[in-house]
Amino acid sequence: MIARSPLAPDAFPELPAVAGVDIGVAETGLKYKGRPDLLLMRFIDGTQVAGVFTRSLCPSAPVDWCRQHLAGGEARGVVVNAGNANAFTGKSGAEACEAVVAAAADALTCRPSRIFAASTGVIGEVLPASKLTPHIEAMAADMAGDRWSDAATAIMTTDTFPKGATRRVDIGGTTVRINGIVKGSGMIAPDMATMLAFIATDAAIPADVLQACLSAATDKSFNCSTVDSDTSTSDTVLAFATGQAANPEIKDADDPALAAFRAALDDICVDLAKQVVRDGEGASKFITINVTGADSDQAAKRIALSIANSPLVKTAIAGEDANWGRVVMAVGKAGEKAERDRLSISMGGTVIAKEGAAVEGYDEGPVAAHMKGQEIDVDVDLALGDGKATVWTCDLTHGYISINADYRS
Amino acid sequence: MIARSPLAPDAFPELPAVAGVDIGVAETGLKYKGRPDLLLMRFIDGTQVAGVFTRSLCPSAPVDWCRQHLAGGEARGVVVNAGNANAFTGKSGAEACEAVVAAAADALTCRPSRIFAASTGVIGEVLPASKLTPHIEAMAADMAGDRWSDAATAIMTTDTFPKGATRRVDIGGTTVRINGIVKGSGMIAPDMATMLAFIATDAAIPADVLQACLSAATDKSFNCSTVDSDTSTSDTVLAFATGQAANPEIKDADDPALAAFRAALDDICVDLAKQVVRDGEGASKFITINVTGADSDQAAKRIALSIANSPLVKTAIAGEDANWGRVVMAVGKAGEKAERDRLSISMGGTVIAKEGAAVEGYDEGPVAAHMKGQEIDVDVDLALGDGKATVWTCDLTHGYISINADYRS
Repeated sequence: MIARSPLAPDAFPELPAVAGVDIGVAETGLKYKGRPDLLLMRFIDGTQVAGVFTRSLCPSAPVDWCRQHLAGGEARGVVVNAGNANAFTGKSGAEACEAVVAAAADALTCRPSRIFAASTGVIGEVLPASKLTPHIEAMAADMAGDRWSDAATAIMTTDTFPKGATRRVDIGGTTVRINGIVKGSGMIAPDMATMLAFIATDAAIPADVLQACLSAATDKSFNCSTVDSDTSTSDTVLAFATGQAANPEIKDADDPALAAFRAALDDICVDLAKQVVRDGEGASKFITINVTGADSDQAAKRIALSIANSPLVKTAIAGEDANWGRVVMAVGKAGEKAERDRLSISMGGTVIAKEGAAVEGYDEGPVAAHMKGQEIDVDVDLALGDGKATVWTCDLTHGYISINADYRS
Repeated sequence: MIARSPLAPDAFPELPAVAGVDIGVAETGLKYKGRPDLLLMRFIDGTQVAGVFTRSLCPSAPVDWCRQHLAGGEARGVVVNAGNANAFTGKSGAEACEAVVAAAADALTCRPSRIFAASTGVIGEVLPASKLTPHIEAMAADMAGDRWSDAATAIMTTDTFPKGATRRVDIGGTTVRINGIVKGSGMIAPDMATMLAFIATDAAIPADVLQACLSAATDKSFNCSTVDSDTSTSDTVLAFATGQAANPEIKDADDPALAAFRAALDDICVDLAKQVVRDGEGASKFITINVTGADSDQAAKRIALSIANSPLVKTAIAGEDANWGRVVMAVGKAGEKAERDRLSISMGGTVIAKEGAAVEGYDEGPVAAHMKGQEIDVDVDLALGDGKATVWTCDLTHGYISINADYRS
């Protein structure tokens, strides 16, 4: 058992029911004992779905399945297991995924193509479907709308706390609800996509509009976080809109009536992404990296991720050392335009280096005090253009090594 | 004091003198005590020089200096200090570099543009030239041709052993000698260039030919190694040809008479690159990653480096865990063409996975035994084309965290 992350929030937030969504969980004992490890969500007829997946060229069987059925735009259920990723498992893996989906479709009396699936855990072992399917009928028979905490727990792997977020927002005079859950916490470098996250809303939003909102939100949230630079084979974000709030019809992602909803969705995704980083394997510090003055926003993000993924920067911060020279190194290796003699670096709001050299009479005192805290801010200004980006990461500690040197044993 | 790497060779190889090269070292106490930390090499008049440098966009002052003077093609000396990288130090850093170079030029009675320089250590602190310059005249007065072991020691930072290699080879009937030294051992990701390496030969080879040979050799050696994915601001490889062997004239890098020399130079560079990896910070395993069947050699190298730089692959190997699923993950995230259902993975010569899934009846026994050794082989075949690459790296252990969390204190 890994100790709860020191960066964890005090408690799981209270997630109220979302009209049109029911939740069931089960303990299958597939890998984890004494906790739920299988999640089934049921959605009311007509629920719209959107998804964003890993850009890994070796995606898992459930990612293949979801991609194949996303175009339909409708979902009646999602089934998720923890402990086995069903990735790199070839034809047998695809068959195992189909078997679990078929059992869920039977239990929820819908077509298999309306069931979405995700698996997380060890890569390379075929999912033993027969350990999951016997539980599904009982799960479907015992569901409730308010079991979001159980749902967030059932999808955990090396996570040390369940992660969720909720917002209430207005669409054209109608109040709608958005809930989201997510799991981490290693193999996190969603420069491409993210780990498993599930979002549900009672808003009435057609699938294509929901997809546009979700893709934009993912780019500003999960795709701006990294734990260890390793991109998973299984990254999946799915969003479901049940329509039960019966808000006025929305036809376009740019509809002004949708602005508050989109802001809330962005906000939930950022909240969930930060929770993943706070539970990064072995994390003891939460690090926010702000890059400004880059050639473009894309260049700023690449530089910010180069800093966030540098093991030397991350270990220095673990050691509470304001080793800003390693930040310079990471800027230099990013491959984006940078001029040493224009670069400024601050930590905790104190300017350390300016125009290519340490500031005269630099007093390390306030920076040293900042480094002892749990929330570390690194600001880099390139003084070249208007490009900017913010990326969240955690430090690299002995805990990461311990967790990952014997993950399978 | 860090313990000697368990992967270190038994002893420093015997490097004989290279005609036309003299070596002096000094203890300046700049950062390290009780060991030489300043190196001065003198080359006979007419010595030809070639160099390869970091592609970091924030290079150190000595890298700027070397780039500026390489076109001259001739060198009379090189001066190298350990403990301060003189990187990101602006105008003062450039002046400090010039002061050290001027002192060396005085002592060796040549123009400053004939002196090359390198610095390694902490980034962001201006090199205190006045701590180095007083030693230079005495060093020049007390030189010898056979002090290669001292030279290799004087350039060490977190290295736990001095690194060198030597070869004897024939050019057009004349025997020539090539010696090389190198230092590591963190901030090593010379996908772009490498750390500090110095190579000297008594062969008569013009600078442009030497440059072609060195660039090709670097690409096949230093650029195929990585410790931690972090590319230094100071990476420098310099090669000097004194011409004292008086071999028949060489005008072209493709001259058949040069073939044996080029093979020996490649060989020395590979030898030195492997020594750097064997002394990677915290290393307990030396890992060889072979990728075959890729779309191109470049694609193979990118995939091999993606595996070699994955913290999850490196920690699994540290834990002696044949977690080949993480190899799949690293192939998938590399962004190069890969088809899951054609991919094969072997470790220690045992095929583990084939055509997108674990081989039937896979016996983990021999692989588990292989993982307990110090030399780990990971072979990946993509079954797509003829592209291949070999990359060397080490594992990621608690030692790396310990060394880097308190490097400056």
